[in-house]
Amino acid sequence: MAVEFKAGLKDVVAVNSSISTVDGEAGRLIYRGYDIRDLARQATYEEVVHLLWNGELPTRTQLETITRQLAANRALDDNVLASMRTYPRTAHPLEAIRTAVSVAGMYDPDSRANTDEANKRKAVRLTAQIPTMVGTVNRLRGGQEPVRPRAEGSTAASFLTVMMGKEPSPVAERTMDMILVLHAEHELNASTFAARISAATFSDLHSDIVAALAALKGPRHGGANEDVLAMLLAIGDPSRAEPFIQRKLDARAKMTHEERALPENRIPGFGHAVYKTEDPRAKFLRKFAQDLAKDWKGPKYFDIQEGLVAAIEKARPSMSPAAAEKVNIVNVDYYAATTYTFLGIPADLGTSIFAVGRMAGWCAHIMEQHGDNRLIRPESEYTGPTGKRWVPIAER
Amino acid sequence: MAVEFKAGLKDVVAVNSSISTVDGEAGRLIYRGYDIRDLARQATYEEVVHLLWNGELPTRTQLETITRQLAANRALDDNVLASMRTYPRTAHPLEAIRTAVSVAGMYDPDSRANTDEANKRKAVRLTAQIPTMVGTVNRLRGGQEPVRPRAEGSTAASFLTVMMGKEPSPVAERTMDMILVLHAEHELNASTFAARISAATFSDLHSDIVAALAALKGPRHGGANEDVLAMLLAIGDPSRAEPFIQRKLDARAKMTHEERALPENRIPGFGHAVYKTEDPRAKFLRKFAQDLAKDWKGPKYFDIQEGLVAAIEKARPSMSPAAAEKVNIVNVDYYAATTYTFLGIPADLGTSIFAVGRMAGWCAHIMEQHGDNRLIRPESEYTGPTGKRWVPIAER
Repeated sequence: MAVEFKAGLKDVVAVNSSISTVDGEAGRLIYRGYDIRDLARQATYEEVVHLLWNGELPTRTQLETITRQLAANRALDDNVLASMRTYPRTAHPLEAIRTAVSVAGMYDPDSRANTDEANKRKAVRLTAQIPTMVGTVNRLRGGQEPVRPRAEGSTAASFLTVMMGKEPSPVAERTMDMILVLHAEHELNASTFAARISAATFSDLHSDIVAALAALKGPRHGGANEDVLAMLLAIGDPSRAEPFIQRKLDARAKMTHEERALPENRIPGFGHAVYKTEDPRAKFLRKFAQDLAKDWKGPKYFDIQEGLVAAIEKARPSMSPAAAEKVNIVNVDYYAATTYTFLGIPADLGTSIFAVGRMAGWCAHIMEQHGDNRLIRPESEYTGPTGKRWVPIAER
Repeated sequence: MAVEFKAGLKDVVAVNSSISTVDGEAGRLIYRGYDIRDLARQATYEEVVHLLWNGELPTRTQLETITRQLAANRALDDNVLASMRTYPRTAHPLEAIRTAVSVAGMYDPDSRANTDEANKRKAVRLTAQIPTMVGTVNRLRGGQEPVRPRAEGSTAASFLTVMMGKEPSPVAERTMDMILVLHAEHELNASTFAARISAATFSDLHSDIVAALAALKGPRHGGANEDVLAMLLAIGDPSRAEPFIQRKLDARAKMTHEERALPENRIPGFGHAVYKTEDPRAKFLRKFAQDLAKDWKGPKYFDIQEGLVAAIEKARPSMSPAAAEKVNIVNVDYYAATTYTFLGIPADLGTSIFAVGRMAGWCAHIMEQHGDNRLIRPESEYTGPTGKRWVPIAER
């Protein structure tokens, strides 16, 4: 009865979804029919939240409504903030966010309700609160008092205010707004799939988001932009970019397939499993990084990045097809790392910023799953022994 | 490139696993080659933990080792206990457990390590701690001081001690031990699948278990035994069992498919998606419930249960095949509800007890996933619009 085994469910269709689609061959990402290039240039994050949750771009009145709702729900419940004050400063930010969302679930006014209306309210509250949680984690682990979120204006401005402890510049706000738009949705990756599996059991929205955050924390999913910055720091100067790539590629050519797959042997920020020609988000992030680099006083990270890309392109003709495939494009993490750094944001918050943006998409998927629900329950193929006879312990 | 859409991934093989297998047609459940009937009669929970994690029944020395390791790790970290003291008493126990596990992850001595050895240590610690967490939640929400777990002996005895605030009787200990054995593993259900998706991103073991708990909380997965007790309470007397079933079946016959699927219209404890002839676990739980009922002074819940089963069998010949399918067997939740009640355990802890037993299986699956890892990343089929043109807000 079972169909053939598909390792990692590759190419298996698990759900129908009208939320977004990725065309990896063409390098296109579509939210509800709109190209990410159009949205990144022209839409705000609040417009994208409305679009993803409702399927249509908001009218002016609708945009005012979602903007006001998000602004009104940004402050954390006192119990959530008290809980966050106790977390160890050494915790990974995503561990702290995962815990804070779990705590928030216990105090949510709709905690026992699972109707469509209650879930819409929870989605608003949690999408509004997660930026505050991320900013608060950053303040508390630095020994600083949390900053109150802004009761009006954009998610991006409030997020930067809470995270950095001061009002952002207009450039920083616009940059963060576009970063949230670019990260808002990306169909069925591991975190979104985990959220839908939880949603399909009719668990609760906070549980579903906790499941998504759990999966996002893994270095095979989120987390690569932290490695990008570590790499740039280690290289230190644009003149060392090409030798770095040569050494890395030479070493990789001598490795087994398993060794090459290890995080420490990859070249962070290069390669994507789905996009074959370009990651449409990377182009926007490159522009941010390039612009912000002009006012940056530290190491020439952006120039190192340009050097790395050039070195890979130079080496590409002599690579095997498999090796070339692994560094086919720069992905969304590559320039995100430098953009965050130039904005003064610590590198290890990169995956948490991803989570802030992706709340829009995760909530859209949870609501879509509830709308036409079916338990997600694949099979496992048993490869173990059969017919074993019980042996009393004295005879083992 | 994508294969055909399989709603809910039904009959799709997502992973190979040598941990357990279910033969629904034959009503068989196998852990590592051993029939659950043999294990339930003869194995302790600690033996099953070793079996599931290592593939073989333990020698006496190995059994002493895992028993000692679990006993030594039962006490909660002071920070975890302090956190649990702050949770609202109205929280669902699984929300509290989900949060406590998330907190424990931040304080785990191996919190930044993801090696096989570190994960084995985390699995021991968390499998030892979750029974203490569940018991502690039960004490705290009743306004009682937490009880220290036992530093030696069985998981079942310590769990009952912490949960009930007193040493269990030998019968209660043996009953709980078998309950944990029966719940220890059940291949790729939604919670186990969620744990494997998180594990496949190389997140951390605490995150993976948090994801599992998130999915388990849903009424489509865990939780049905709570509904069973509510039903028995509403029926109140064995004489009302048959009329109750008649009314329920008559009402269901007039409903649409969607209405019948609603939790409030189901007959809790009846029907299983995989088992077609019997749920091998239910037979053992029926025996517990029957034995414990003899000393029970409250409503005749067990007799009501027998009356419900008899009434369904009496009605079966006149049911449509589809209707009969929905109440084909009594499932694991049916007699678990009364067994817990007769042991003095609140009905809403049923799903948490499931989690205590299933820790053995979840950890086995996480370790198996790491051993031959591949990101679990199915596709979604896009059913939304395409080619939409950006419209400025003034023109919407």
